[in-house]
Amino acid sequence: MDRIPPTLEWRDGVVRLIDQRRLPAELVFIDAATVEDLCQAISGLAVRGAPALGVAGAMGVALAVSLGQEVLAAGAQIVATRPTAVNLKWGVERALASPDPIAEAQAMVAEDISCNRRLGALGAGLLPEDGRILTHCNAGSLACAGYGTAIGVIRAAHEAGRRPSVWVDETRPVLQGSRLTAWELGRLGIPATVVVDSAAGSLMARGEVDAVIVGADRIAANGDVANKVGTYSLAVLCRHHRIPFYVAAPMSTVDLDCPAGSSIPVEQRPADEVSLSGDRRVVPDGIPVSNPAFDVTPARLVSAIITEEGVVRSPYKRALARLAKGRQTSSAPQHG
Amino acid sequence: MDRIPPTLEWRDGVVRLIDQRRLPAELVFIDAATVEDLCQAISGLAVRGAPALGVAGAMGVALAVSLGQEVLAAGAQIVATRPTAVNLKWGVERALASPDPIAEAQAMVAEDISCNRRLGALGAGLLPEDGRILTHCNAGSLACAGYGTAIGVIRAAHEAGRRPSVWVDETRPVLQGSRLTAWELGRLGIPATVVVDSAAGSLMARGEVDAVIVGADRIAANGDVANKVGTYSLAVLCRHHRIPFYVAAPMSTVDLDCPAGSSIPVEQRPADEVSLSGDRRVVPDGIPVSNPAFDVTPARLVSAIITEEGVVRSPYKRALARLAKGRQTSSAPQHG
Repeated sequence: MDRIPPTLEWRDGVVRLIDQRRLPAELVFIDAATVEDLCQAISGLAVRGAPALGVAGAMGVALAVSLGQEVLAAGAQIVATRPTAVNLKWGVERALASPDPIAEAQAMVAEDISCNRRLGALGAGLLPEDGRILTHCNAGSLACAGYGTAIGVIRAAHEAGRRPSVWVDETRPVLQGSRLTAWELGRLGIPATVVVDSAAGSLMARGEVDAVIVGADRIAANGDVANKVGTYSLAVLCRHHRIPFYVAAPMSTVDLDCPAGSSIPVEQRPADEVSLSGDRRVVPDGIPVSNPAFDVTPARLVSAIITEEGVVRSPYKRALARLAKGRQTSSAPQHG
Repeated sequence: MDRIPPTLEWRDGVVRLIDQRRLPAELVFIDAATVEDLCQAISGLAVRGAPALGVAGAMGVALAVSLGQEVLAAGAQIVATRPTAVNLKWGVERALASPDPIAEAQAMVAEDISCNRRLGALGAGLLPEDGRILTHCNAGSLACAGYGTAIGVIRAAHEAGRRPSVWVDETRPVLQGSRLTAWELGRLGIPATVVVDSAAGSLMARGEVDAVIVGADRIAANGDVANKVGTYSLAVLCRHHRIPFYVAAPMSTVDLDCPAGSSIPVEQRPADEVSLSGDRRVVPDGIPVSNPAFDVTPARLVSAIITEEGVVRSPYKRALARLAKGRQTSSAPQHG
């Protein structure tokens, strides 16, 4: 079995990252040598996914340091590339606060992977034996420094012998599901079948889905979840069919400063992601496209949020605050 | 404003049809001179949509007649190209039963258009003034001989000065929404915005959808509706958000021999519709794809079915049987 290479890593003054736009056809790497290179990779979705963006943000500050640039300006430039992703800001701020941003960025890689392994182990027990799990977008190794969050849970269940199989939503418009999640699951030897996003409802109606698990781009203090557009529809479909709907995300995705989902800005992405298929126009000239990257799922539709600090259920406000507090205490020796 | 040309027409022994695969980039026609040509156009989706397939089926029989071929074998060959579409079978059988299949096929074109105009006028009153209507796939002129069913209703509302605007689901995998519906609405001067299929839920949650209207590939005697995959998810989302969910279809789509949706065969289409984007592979080699063309929406999620004979609501079984009976009586002089 092929392993999945690191999503991004620091290599002697250069950030080497998998160019996710080229998957699954080919596995190629980008060496970002400047903050500008890295910003282009982020805004062009060569690297994406909340936890990976956290590390990318820190590595951007590390790049600025190694090039002798003004770090605050570099940090602001990086944060502006993806407004919904709270992790990007978190990663930038963490590197800025560190006496050694380069070492900090590297530490964050190791930390992210061990965090995802913990989260995966905690979540795996929620999935039934032989469970048929549906996921949306890519909350896998490629969305993180490694291992994955939602896919991390499925992977941990697989490693524990629980034999999960996965329905992979293709995830329009950029197809992170069919291109990235299916590629990861193939490499991991976990059975996967790709479907168009709109097939999820009828799969559920036919009793072919035991649980849905997704990642998150940002979780508000009250448990509302911003994630890839389409996540909300899945949560409503799960409620209608009485199927559990799980969100797996590291505590760095939880934004206690954001009281509720209504405060999360929803990024509009370029129309061409929808109107072009390769070089071919698939929307007529002159017809507008609305291309929101995310949607917000209210906490009441979320069965549980799986974090590295524990699995929490409604009411989320108190539970998330408690986990965040525990995390601060437990990580104090490390960062103090 | 450009008009929309006929979807298909009989021209001196040849069936001329719009090649819908080439839209919206270019408007080109296919001249099908043999039954084989026509079957390829049908199975390749150059022509699609329940009412258009009815006319196409009849024109296939007309082709066999004009070429001196065995008509029953030709009819069977045509019906086998798309197993879910009851109209195809209906059109073939109607032409077979006629003493002059060529004249019958031509009469069906005129009849389909006038039927859609009636259906449109009946349905237009259901749409609110300035209504923001969401539709899926293409139930427009291109799905019929002309005018359209679901789009016919929107078009009739527009012609009546009710100022509808339309959210167009792109409709994966073949993009009949972004390619065909958006093209038609542009030509008709009806405001339209394309969204990915999975954005419908969050549009509803933000209060931006007043009604959903779709066509149907087959309606069972109990009111269950088979239509493009994703229709069922929309119906569930409408129920959750208390938004009316309308189905617009001619009575030829109602199959009283089919007691319920569970009896409707759901066609699996080729995996390449999902795994290729142009020439580019977007699903890794070795990962299976499930590509059901349709799903079935149970009657209890349908607010009303709009036909040329009237608008019916639950309980559908009695109402549809009554309309079918009325239709048989009213059309008896014409075909008797």
